[in-house]
Amino acid sequence: MSDIPEAGPGTLADRAAALDATDELAKYRELFTLPEGVTYLDGNSLGALPRGVPARLQDVATREWGELLIRSWDESGWWTAPERIGDLVAPVVGAAPGQIVVGDSTSVNVFKALVGAVRLVDDPARTEILVDATTFPTDGYIAESAARMTGRTLRAVRPEEVPAALGPHTACVLLNQVDYRSGRLYDLPGLTAAIHEAGALAVWDLCHSAGALPVGLDEHGVDLAIGCTYKYLNGGPGSPAYLYVATRHQDRFDSPLPGWTGHANPFGMAPDYTPAAGATRGRAGTPDILSMLALESALDVWDGVAIDSVRAKSLALTDFFVECVERYVPEGRVELVTPRPHEERGSQIALRCADAGDVMRALIARGVVGDFRHPDVLRFGFTPLYVGFGDVERAARVLAETLRPLAQP
Amino acid sequence: MSDIPEAGPGTLADRAAALDATDELAKYRELFTLPEGVTYLDGNSLGALPRGVPARLQDVATREWGELLIRSWDESGWWTAPERIGDLVAPVVGAAPGQIVVGDSTSVNVFKALVGAVRLVDDPARTEILVDATTFPTDGYIAESAARMTGRTLRAVRPEEVPAALGPHTACVLLNQVDYRSGRLYDLPGLTAAIHEAGALAVWDLCHSAGALPVGLDEHGVDLAIGCTYKYLNGGPGSPAYLYVATRHQDRFDSPLPGWTGHANPFGMAPDYTPAAGATRGRAGTPDILSMLALESALDVWDGVAIDSVRAKSLALTDFFVECVERYVPEGRVELVTPRPHEERGSQIALRCADAGDVMRALIARGVVGDFRHPDVLRFGFTPLYVGFGDVERAARVLAETLRPLAQP
Repeated sequence: MSDIPEAGPGTLADRAAALDATDELAKYRELFTLPEGVTYLDGNSLGALPRGVPARLQDVATREWGELLIRSWDESGWWTAPERIGDLVAPVVGAAPGQIVVGDSTSVNVFKALVGAVRLVDDPARTEILVDATTFPTDGYIAESAARMTGRTLRAVRPEEVPAALGPHTACVLLNQVDYRSGRLYDLPGLTAAIHEAGALAVWDLCHSAGALPVGLDEHGVDLAIGCTYKYLNGGPGSPAYLYVATRHQDRFDSPLPGWTGHANPFGMAPDYTPAAGATRGRAGTPDILSMLALESALDVWDGVAIDSVRAKSLALTDFFVECVERYVPEGRVELVTPRPHEERGSQIALRCADAGDVMRALIARGVVGDFRHPDVLRFGFTPLYVGFGDVERAARVLAETLRPLAQP
Repeated sequence: MSDIPEAGPGTLADRAAALDATDELAKYRELFTLPEGVTYLDGNSLGALPRGVPARLQDVATREWGELLIRSWDESGWWTAPERIGDLVAPVVGAAPGQIVVGDSTSVNVFKALVGAVRLVDDPARTEILVDATTFPTDGYIAESAARMTGRTLRAVRPEEVPAALGPHTACVLLNQVDYRSGRLYDLPGLTAAIHEAGALAVWDLCHSAGALPVGLDEHGVDLAIGCTYKYLNGGPGSPAYLYVATRHQDRFDSPLPGWTGHANPFGMAPDYTPAAGATRGRAGTPDILSMLALESALDVWDGVAIDSVRAKSLALTDFFVECVERYVPEGRVELVTPRPHEERGSQIALRCADAGDVMRALIARGVVGDFRHPDVLRFGFTPLYVGFGDVERAARVLAETLRPLAQP
């Protein structure tokens, strides 16, 4: 558009180039395969492909499976993958080793965590489970099932209403650190403390925060947590989720899905279930090795990455995106949904836009990939390991160019 | 060994060669990658690698994930994979389309099936779940959890005792079609009929039968079934399991794991759960695409295969193995655990042998791969699509040669 200067002193494109030139994390981009000509701002839905994954998958399939076959359960370390990979996720979310196992989907792990939390509380007077009313819906659906199957009631409240909703009747609370739609970051330390003060347990869903900002599970005394690995952890489509059970709760953690791989002696084939010690008791069935080892390879990119530098860049990227959008996009055409204060912002920017579905289709056709969330939200995710400031400026420019000719709805 | 003639008219090696020469399924072996010098009789634990899988995995990783990224959920058919692959499993187990979804582990699907069965029965007077006392233990562990969480009691009985144990108090029964240890085949049609006569529902675990023999889920009126895909279906280590819900039960099937992908309108992000129609309501979380599409590729080998011809070859293989073992192995050194009658035999042969752990290690060192089940069982699985009669004769010969010098325990 003629009224958006392409480059030159003082332009946003110029600023972007300068920011990219001094970006400490810029070098990590080459660890990923990104399609030519695409500005990918959907890593909050599906992370990009880490460059080492295809070769690792090939080796797992042809050598470990094809040649070694059943021997690989021991010799290739398949059997211990859930704990080993859990220990790779641990530093990213601020957990000491031995508290995370990888496996199953987020939904299945929400069920384990909530039922486990109710059983840890073990108090019939604590009749209520609280759940984030704005949560990604699967958490609410599964929480309803967990409540039904443990004889509790479920109440949906907005995260900011949690402190007032807590009481002697509260068993546990399931919250998202970052809201999937708005990108709003909630106060994990403060809410966890309030939940504990009420004598309840805190279960955190880290799907939209792990890998994008510091979580500090151990530091803030979180009880249980779950998260997916296919967003900011780049594990691949539908890659296995994880379950965190704080060390102090592990001996009493009583899973509703006590599958054989969580048994203290799985190959003893005993008729009675004796749960394994440690995080292992969070395992259920046979681990899905192809997906799991792809994830393990994907986590290689975290070697040497400090989560604080990821957070600093994430905030710089989202600040810059908001600035570019406000400069380029006609006034009133979109509304910022994500909070402006850094302490309330995750690593995505959500914009309300009445014709959001059409707009996102047009953006994608022009190589700017975000996503659309029903009914009127444009979401743009910023993965600091592979998104640069030039991407941000380009995305805002293309958004503005897309919005101008489209009739106001 | 000098007293086992290697070949020549009338020898077993000669018979094996003749049987291989006329084997209609022999040509399928070339669809698999099998390691040089190995006789692989552990396909009842981990099936061999179908030749097409590595290239498919590479395409999924580099093009579908790496290039198309988020678009692949639609454009590459990722979203509908659980039902599409379920429909590929369906003919192998005698199910019409639309009744099977693939996803999660066997353990997780056992939980869905048993809780679902209790809810379908929906009768507080039916207080008991029966479970196969000889089952692979995870079924018993998960059944115990399902009983606990639905307010039922669990009783473990041997499959042959099921008819006598059934009564007006029985809600449902979880049975294995083939016992994982002994290789014994149970009477699925007869037991299902007896369970129905008692007004209960039949849930079958097909882990050790699917792909090895006709199951006939629809024909025999099975209510629910689950199974893994990494044994005779060759889906890869820990590949996704499946859940069958008979069409007549689908509208009332009420999953304890109502994850968002089983919702009628998953992208509507509604706060309340409305289950999808059909098999889809058996889905829970986001499907694990890498493993799932590897499985889809693995199922290509079934194109044009009649399960009756698989069964005929399976019985011929196990008959021949027993004959070779009886001819070669010193009398009394091993004891046949698997029943001799065809109607009671799956596709494996289990031999009791006091020093089974040492014997299996020695066999594996000589390239004959079966497995050991605590405390005293040697298991040999015969996958008709890639095991030949020459393999069988070689395995029995090596077993005999291994057993002779080993001291009697």
